[in-house]
Amino acid sequence: MTSTFGEKLRISIFGQSHGDAIGVTIEGLPAGEEICMEELYAFLQRRAPGKNDMSTTRKEADMPRFLSGIMDGKTAGAPLCAIIENTSQRSKDYEKLADIPRPGHADYTARLRYGEDVDMRGGGHFSGRLTAPLCIAGGIAKQILARRGIHVGAHIAQIGGVHDAAFDPVHVSTADFEKVLSNFIPVLDAQQGEAMHEAVLAARNDLDSVGGQVECAIIGMPKGLGDPMFDGVENRIARAVYGIPAVKALEFGAGTAYAAMHGSEANDPFYMDGEDVKTSTNNCGGVLGGITNGMPIVFRATFKPTPSIAKPQKSVSLSNKQDVTLEIHGRHDPCIVQRAVPVVEAAAACVMLDMILSSDK
Amino acid sequence: MTSTFGEKLRISIFGQSHGDAIGVTIEGLPAGEEICMEELYAFLQRRAPGKNDMSTTRKEADMPRFLSGIMDGKTAGAPLCAIIENTSQRSKDYEKLADIPRPGHADYTARLRYGEDVDMRGGGHFSGRLTAPLCIAGGIAKQILARRGIHVGAHIAQIGGVHDAAFDPVHVSTADFEKVLSNFIPVLDAQQGEAMHEAVLAARNDLDSVGGQVECAIIGMPKGLGDPMFDGVENRIARAVYGIPAVKALEFGAGTAYAAMHGSEANDPFYMDGEDVKTSTNNCGGVLGGITNGMPIVFRATFKPTPSIAKPQKSVSLSNKQDVTLEIHGRHDPCIVQRAVPVVEAAAACVMLDMILSSDK
Amino acid sequence: MTSTFGEKLRISIFGQSHGDAIGVTIEGLPAGEEICMEELYAFLQRRAPGKNDMSTTRKEADMPRFLSGIMDGKTAGAPLCAIIENTSQRSKDYEKLADIPRPGHADYTARLRYGEDVDMRGGGHFSGRLTAPLCIAGGIAKQILARRGIHVGAHIAQIGGVHDAAFDPVHVSTADFEKVLSNFIPVLDAQQGEAMHEAVLAARNDLDSVGGQVECAIIGMPKGLGDPMFDGVENRIARAVYGIPAVKALEFGAGTAYAAMHGSEANDPFYMDGEDVKTSTNNCGGVLGGITNGMPIVFRATFKPTPSIAKPQKSVSLSNKQDVTLEIHGRHDPCIVQRAVPVVEAAAACVMLDMILSSDK
Amino acid sequence: MTSTFGEKLRISIFGQSHGDAIGVTIEGLPAGEEICMEELYAFLQRRAPGKNDMSTTRKEADMPRFLSGIMDGKTAGAPLCAIIENTSQRSKDYEKLADIPRPGHADYTARLRYGEDVDMRGGGHFSGRLTAPLCIAGGIAKQILARRGIHVGAHIAQIGGVHDAAFDPVHVSTADFEKVLSNFIPVLDAQQGEAMHEAVLAARNDLDSVGGQVECAIIGMPKGLGDPMFDGVENRIARAVYGIPAVKALEFGAGTAYAAMHGSEANDPFYMDGEDVKTSTNNCGGVLGGITNGMPIVFRATFKPTPSIAKPQKSVSLSNKQDVTLEIHGRHDPCIVQRAVPVVEAAAACVMLDMILSSDK
Repeated sequence: MTSTFGEKLRISIFGQSHGDAIGVTIEGLPAGEEICMEELYAFLQRRAPGKNDMSTTRKEADMPRFLSGIMDGKTAGAPLCAIIENTSQRSKDYEKLADIPRPGHADYTARLRYGEDVDMRGGGHFSGRLTAPLCIAGGIAKQILARRGIHVGAHIAQIGGVHDAAFDPVHVSTADFEKVLSNFIPVLDAQQGEAMHEAVLAARNDLDSVGGQVECAIIGMPKGLGDPMFDGVENRIARAVYGIPAVKALEFGAGTAYAAMHGSEANDPFYMDGEDVKTSTNNCGGVLGGITNGMPIVFRATFKPTPSIAKPQKSVSLSNKQDVTLEIHGRHDPCIVQRAVPVVEAAAACVMLDMILSSDK
Repeated sequence: MTSTFGEKLRISIFGQSHGDAIGVTIEGLPAGEEICMEELYAFLQRRAPGKNDMSTTRKEADMPRFLSGIMDGKTAGAPLCAIIENTSQRSKDYEKLADIPRPGHADYTARLRYGEDVDMRGGGHFSGRLTAPLCIAGGIAKQILARRGIHVGAHIAQIGGVHDAAFDPVHVSTADFEKVLSNFIPVLDAQQGEAMHEAVLAARNDLDSVGGQVECAIIGMPKGLGDPMFDGVENRIARAVYGIPAVKALEFGAGTAYAAMHGSEANDPFYMDGEDVKTSTNNCGGVLGGITNGMPIVFRATFKPTPSIAKPQKSVSLSNKQDVTLEIHGRHDPCIVQRAVPVVEAAAACVMLDMILSSDK
Repeated sequence: MTSTFGEKLRISIFGQSHGDAIGVTIEGLPAGEEICMEELYAFLQRRAPGKNDMSTTRKEADMPRFLSGIMDGKTAGAPLCAIIENTSQRSKDYEKLADIPRPGHADYTARLRYGEDVDMRGGGHFSGRLTAPLCIAGGIAKQILARRGIHVGAHIAQIGGVHDAAFDPVHVSTADFEKVLSNFIPVLDAQQGEAMHEAVLAARNDLDSVGGQVECAIIGMPKGLGDPMFDGVENRIARAVYGIPAVKALEFGAGTAYAAMHGSEANDPFYMDGEDVKTSTNNCGGVLGGITNGMPIVFRATFKPTPSIAKPQKSVSLSNKQDVTLEIHGRHDPCIVQRAVPVVEAAAACVMLDMILSSDK
Repeated sequence: MTSTFGEKLRISIFGQSHGDAIGVTIEGLPAGEEICMEELYAFLQRRAPGKNDMSTTRKEADMPRFLSGIMDGKTAGAPLCAIIENTSQRSKDYEKLADIPRPGHADYTARLRYGEDVDMRGGGHFSGRLTAPLCIAGGIAKQILARRGIHVGAHIAQIGGVHDAAFDPVHVSTADFEKVLSNFIPVLDAQQGEAMHEAVLAARNDLDSVGGQVECAIIGMPKGLGDPMFDGVENRIARAVYGIPAVKALEFGAGTAYAAMHGSEANDPFYMDGEDVKTSTNNCGGVLGGITNGMPIVFRATFKPTPSIAKPQKSVSLSNKQDVTLEIHGRHDPCIVQRAVPVVEAAAACVMLDMILSSDK
């Protein structure tokens, strides 16, 4: 497992779904940065399960415990470690799952990779639950970034066939981020949010699940950050975001739409805005040659449907080497996208802060 | 610049478009591996410009020179360095470009990042020309992989609005790869290739360019490779592929289509194929939890249209801080996608070989 | 802070001396390895303070708590996190220390590096206490290595002017390691140990401290491991061992004595021992060209005297910018070397296991 | 092979002794830095063989060729690659050496590590010749550092039993560095240099070789640089310096002498020098807790005697599995220490520049 990313800011995630605790160590945080626990708590709540009928009814512990790296509410120059104790595990189905891998899950590949002793209870280290410590790191990074005028926001761009309005890639602002947070679910267009809600409930009623897409924007990043060829903005975000379970596609700016475009519409024209160089469109998503150009950084991550569904599915018994039919019971999210929104923000925030700390400028 | 990727197999690319030479150093190649120069040459030719009316008429030197790392035609246990001497540079337009950044290029961001002394003649280190040394590394990796029964192939999935047939994600085979190479341009469906050809010529006649998409498949990879959470298959491929200039989107398996799917159709059912566990569909693109499951690895990369177009474009004079109109002359590819196909294969091959060498199994 | 080392086995240490807890995360442990808690406890006890009159009377908590990475007493394929809760801090002298840096300590440089908010209570993250989590990792690594026939042992080579007998670099065996552990303090020659004991007590009575040297040997490592030029055995051990507070010199094999030798005596002659190639001397300490040659790996680390001494010392007030005289009270080790022996073993064991896991052979 | 070191400034060395060329790629150099080729040439000459009767009579090509990374004499923001073509190889003895490993060389371990196809002609990638590209990187780093008021100098501290005067660890200055360069061989005390000269000639006449020690000092480094626990100044220097062939010991400040010292003499007292905090002694070699304290950084590296000696030596035939007697003919350095002085400076300069570029301050 290399559950670590970042260059100067190194985020390292540990824990299994049904272990004693999950947590994160963060190396490289600047010292003397205040951490507002209320703000962090509010951020973690956005990821927490059980808030509405679109997510699992499982409960999670409220707040992380900080073991190191802070003193008097400020970062202390030493690596920070924060943990969340596990309290609400139910492992009874484990025996069966160890033999019959759940389609779409890492059950089978984890056994191939780590052998029979791998802890896959509740998904083990592959569980979506491991995004909670990522959110601790991201929540802290967001606070530090905000003090530097950098803001990260995201919304549900799509669930099933229902699309939200997109961020305006040129003018996206903190007002948009606030609007997203004011809605029942994190969307720009509340009506579309309602349609998404119905799509999720329909899937749940059908013992099924549904996928979706999250769009994220970062505003205020300094110009000129990024290390081409392989440590540019896209490479770094990709490494982090593809670490979020269920992400299967990642696009920057116009993304896949670029394939059908001509250069004359795709190229973002430069113009002078007073003393400042800007572009009048932002198809590139704020990144040229892997380096920030001062426009908002915009990307989208596609999540596959939650693989845990109650519908009967075809699988195999690894011990008997026979085809079998599997029914998964338990409390699962019919759609993970709602809860994934802050996780994407967290990953982006960690990468942005790392880029700032790693800059040799 | 961190123009290096890989863990055990470290690929490091150097050179500027108009410098003395471009090249690559490769650390970690196993010793005693034969390198067939003819096969390597044929592979590099697939990326070379000037082959048909879809690409630039610029010429490039034929073959790399190997400075180190080989002896008697075999890898020698030491880092390999191979270079391509630059012979055909024309730098006359450089002065203007230094002041007036080309839309869609890294001209502006490179100056922000590295200052006024950065060498951006012909795109400098950001030039698509730097994919030639990547292909040297990838061509070598492909040969070593093939000896282990692992094959990497790609084709143009889309140019402009024209789509090729897709690889069958379950049954894609070396026969498909051979078919692609037998066509006028690297597609599965020759008729669609002809339509792409026309789309590119139309763009060129319109002093414009056009984007596209490359689909890549890897067959024969061992099961159980990949290091979650942040060094899984997707993370590693993403870091390499986003290092190819102009890539703006990357999808694995069903990719963005997952957003509209239900779990019951998205999950790939397991079944026993004799003693072997397989899946009857392959929406996940051969990767679950970041780890190979033995099915073909399938991904798609979207390329933006070549930013160098002859049509007048809006830009700014950085010295005068004024809006200006820019016309770019010279020999440019109206569509880079054709030449990008082997580059994507090269990146994938390097990542696959690295994963094999890095495995602690 | 980059409190992390290792390639495949990544050891990451967190905590401050007077924080809530100190701990370690370990990525890359093979799954299914049993961890014998009794054996680990016994190993940690060798580092624990308060055992005899040569060390501080401070007490430390007995056993680490494992938060993740194990299941049913075996490694579970996920990152392991183990912590030791802090219970016995006394921070009263902190205010003064923040202003008046202790000579020989990191007080001054830590403030330069991290600013005024750095937590330096009790030495903060720089405290020798942080070697406890390193010993957790090392103790686990030692158990895994032992199962593969690889053994790590160390002893006090010198305290003050008193020298122990040296390991026989050719024939050092587990019997030597056992002998070391059977003595009052970890030495080969009990009489010399007694003399060391007296030297330490004399220093303590003089309100002073004394330095020393630890010699470490590793037997049973496979031949042919190590990655020259900069990831050879020496480079890797150096990176880890120089991370132990107070280490200021590191030598392999004949070490500094090489400077006065001639090649004809320095070169270790090869000979056949049955089918096996061995050397009749082992001046090189088991490493040629950065790669193991199958002979015991032998190195020595020199520790400076504990900088905390009760004698009055010259320092400065950073706030007043004046010279001052500082008297440090509290419970300190008059000599750290005794307790450093298992720490050196721990660092070596982590490096050896990492080399085995990182090998692409 | 991981022939790369550095974090922001990445130095990667390639080549085999008898390959086409040896060279170095350098990532992360700041753009716009002038490289004075004459100064670089003069620096490389200090390492070059054939200057006096203390070194081999082999000749090496004069100047490196720069393939990339510079434009108009300045660094250009892209990775720099510089090579030295090999012209003077004599490989006739290769067949024998492949079967009969030379004692003290990497012949045997390289075969264990890389197999029979490893290129070990003339020592291959393990040859001392590979320190030439390190000196290219170091010579460039020295120029960039000097512009920032940072100077790196070294001298022979010992050859055989003969010792030079030591650098004054508190007051060492560029005048000392100049004095060293003005002598016949790089020493502070010309008379001791003469005695060293005699020791080397005596060894040569005896068909033997002799070891020694190099002392290096760095003055002018900013305070507060270094990343504990495992990326402090000592760890970083150790990783680089142990990459120089034949280095077997490394000490900082008082080094091994610390073992016999008491804390009251070992601790460096702080005092105010006007507004500046200094220490009146410098036993710690300018580093506390892995972080620079503003005093000169001082370290010593011990080199084993050149293993290539003309005296008959005991070895084995790997094919026959028999003990044999080996006589090595050819042109070898009876003492490598003289030529190692600039190499140590080069390694130190690269590390210092990397630390400055990597600093997040």
